[in-house]
Amino acid sequence: MIFMKILLKNCRYILTQNKNRDILENQSILIEENKISKISKSIKGNFDEIIDCSKKLVMPGLINCHTHVAMTLMRGIADDMNLEDFLKKTFRLDKEMDKDKVKKGAEIGIIEMIKSGTTCFQDLYYYEDVVAEVAEKFGMRAVLAWAVLDKEYTTQKGEPLKNAIKFSKSIKSELIKPAFGLQGVYVCSKETFEKSKKYANEKKLLLHMHLSETRKEVEEHIKKTGKSPTKWLYEIGFLSENLSAAHCVWLTDEEIKMLNEKNVSVVHCPSSNLKLASGCMPWKEMKKFGVNISLGTDGCASNNNLDMFEEMHISALIHKYASMDARVANAQEILDSATIFGAKALKINSGSVEEGKLADLITLDISDLRWFPLNKNTLISHIVYSINSSCVIDSIINGKIIMRERKILK
Amino acid sequence: MIFMKILLKNCRYILTQNKNRDILENQSILIEENKISKISKSIKGNFDEIIDCSKKLVMPGLINCHTHVAMTLMRGIADDMNLEDFLKKTFRLDKEMDKDKVKKGAEIGIIEMIKSGTTCFQDLYYYEDVVAEVAEKFGMRAVLAWAVLDKEYTTQKGEPLKNAIKFSKSIKSELIKPAFGLQGVYVCSKETFEKSKKYANEKKLLLHMHLSETRKEVEEHIKKTGKSPTKWLYEIGFLSENLSAAHCVWLTDEEIKMLNEKNVSVVHCPSSNLKLASGCMPWKEMKKFGVNISLGTDGCASNNNLDMFEEMHISALIHKYASMDARVANAQEILDSATIFGAKALKINSGSVEEGKLADLITLDISDLRWFPLNKNTLISHIVYSINSSCVIDSIINGKIIMRERKILK
Repeated sequence: MIFMKILLKNCRYILTQNKNRDILENQSILIEENKISKISKSIKGNFDEIIDCSKKLVMPGLINCHTHVAMTLMRGIADDMNLEDFLKKTFRLDKEMDKDKVKKGAEIGIIEMIKSGTTCFQDLYYYEDVVAEVAEKFGMRAVLAWAVLDKEYTTQKGEPLKNAIKFSKSIKSELIKPAFGLQGVYVCSKETFEKSKKYANEKKLLLHMHLSETRKEVEEHIKKTGKSPTKWLYEIGFLSENLSAAHCVWLTDEEIKMLNEKNVSVVHCPSSNLKLASGCMPWKEMKKFGVNISLGTDGCASNNNLDMFEEMHISALIHKYASMDARVANAQEILDSATIFGAKALKINSGSVEEGKLADLITLDISDLRWFPLNKNTLISHIVYSINSSCVIDSIINGKIIMRERKILK
Repeated sequence: MIFMKILLKNCRYILTQNKNRDILENQSILIEENKISKISKSIKGNFDEIIDCSKKLVMPGLINCHTHVAMTLMRGIADDMNLEDFLKKTFRLDKEMDKDKVKKGAEIGIIEMIKSGTTCFQDLYYYEDVVAEVAEKFGMRAVLAWAVLDKEYTTQKGEPLKNAIKFSKSIKSELIKPAFGLQGVYVCSKETFEKSKKYANEKKLLLHMHLSETRKEVEEHIKKTGKSPTKWLYEIGFLSENLSAAHCVWLTDEEIKMLNEKNVSVVHCPSSNLKLASGCMPWKEMKKFGVNISLGTDGCASNNNLDMFEEMHISALIHKYASMDARVANAQEILDSATIFGAKALKINSGSVEEGKLADLITLDISDLRWFPLNKNTLISHIVYSINSSCVIDSIINGKIIMRERKILK
């Protein structure tokens, strides 16, 4: 891989998302190899590429912590129906997915994500080897969690856990982290959870899963085991800081405390949860107990796009309503979830614009009137509440320019 | 005013929003004077302008039935705070508004609306004479409701109702309809409501108002009068088909029936209601009783943009959650609210692409991958759930091209 020396020159604003959440004005960013090496008023030297950012805002690329990227092929085909009908329809279509379809879906989805400001995503699906190839081709960073579930429930050929292990061994890439994606307690036995965790721990792999998405899931697990999914996972020892759990809609305070105690990151997917009428993740309570909340779009069958700017906007709105308190889920918290907290969930050295961090950055055009009035105090508000992803102009991932002036280079 | 003969040639799709909600393929649209004169496979003749629509979708322009356009100046300055603090802050800033500021705010807001596909809006504010000038300049259609409230509560110079009457007399325009905008039961006496209605009826003017936006408004009116705002307005005879009422969050079934009996149109403003934690309009119940639901963005202090595509998306999501039923607020219903039902609320002969209707149309670029998979069955889904307003390419209002290839011509 050939790395370059890139200068982001005279950035009008840099939204650092560092510890102090500093916003810098009129500074330049030097990218060397795959990292941010310097941020300063004046940087001199020779550069392979110079991007004039005097009319742009530079910020960390967004991190989409839960999707099924191949499902872009199912966009708009299962709307406005209850979960049972939705699952029937998507399960039928899932069965028809082959490597060619996964490739096409991944291409569409990855282009969509790059264009809407995402620089890293976590995927839960099968044929992740194909998704890995596509991500590599476009230069996209990804955590690819091969779907693991009991053999009797799967549409995969072969045994899911074995497939996942085989996949994890095959990946040798700076951009791709393999992971195990436990489908959910409704299709995974205790043994499947335990085996997955054991292997993941040995090989230092991340774990991902669907958790407490619907009331039905929780009620049926209580009927089956006497315990809620979270409590059951806590007791079998599956919860850990290497796990990110998507949805987490139906949780009690006690369960939220368990997630926090075990340093599990949750992945909030508001569009999908609202659209399927699953419910609303208890944001206020999670914040109260200190849980790390990241953000995800879920797949296109239930969202129906992969746009993290929309996900930020919808998150900020829904929790005010759900809590009947307009102070809940403020703009800074929301931005944190889409950047630095996402990086924490996926154990990636990104999510902020700081020296030493991976160079996963996007630039935004700030000339549109939806940025008016524009000043340091309104920037984050406009990102969360006003603009849309069409403002994303350039994308740099792992020190390489992936999109320039809205043109994807690969 | 000079009208032209415009041909929208070979439209890939026409989303008519006619009675049958037909979607036409590969047909052309002839615009003569300010109306749609013909829709057909082949239209021959001489035209002043031809727009190639072979790679575009043509649909009715969106109708934003409630905003305070000058408040674009207050975007991002009162976020994440409860209503009391929000009102304190915006009231203070409202007092500082003069004609120059209203002009600037209206310019920004109208440009934003054109770029995001709105071809008609209803405004509630003062200095509507200034807003009218700006709307005329850009060629935007508008219903401008001068804010009417009791003298002791207003920041206006002079008596609000007299100002509103004076304004209504001054308007002689095809594009602008003057109206009276009753601020709300908390600042308008019975006499103010009655006088406004009497004058409006005589002069055939529309009435607009804020209604039951917050729980507090309802509770205080019950304390003051023994009746809820809607019941009180019903009994004093203010409700009629000429009234559109914004928000309507806190309503009982009985009140919804009253609105329907009197053919009042409601204007749903989901972003604003969620962001201020006001609540969620009872969509399912309104549909059950047959109320005409239109859609609005509200002002930029509480939204914080004027993008009707976002308003559609958010509406479609929130009512599924609020009703715990994913079938509620389906994509077609949502699109109806933003087009044909908005036209009904504002008594304007638009909202659909049909021969004889006003030529208020937009074209959308359908090449973006967020339209994939693209066919007649997925179009409306993609408009509501997937794409964003950056797809809007051309805008025609009252038979004139207002925006072409995203460039506003005025």
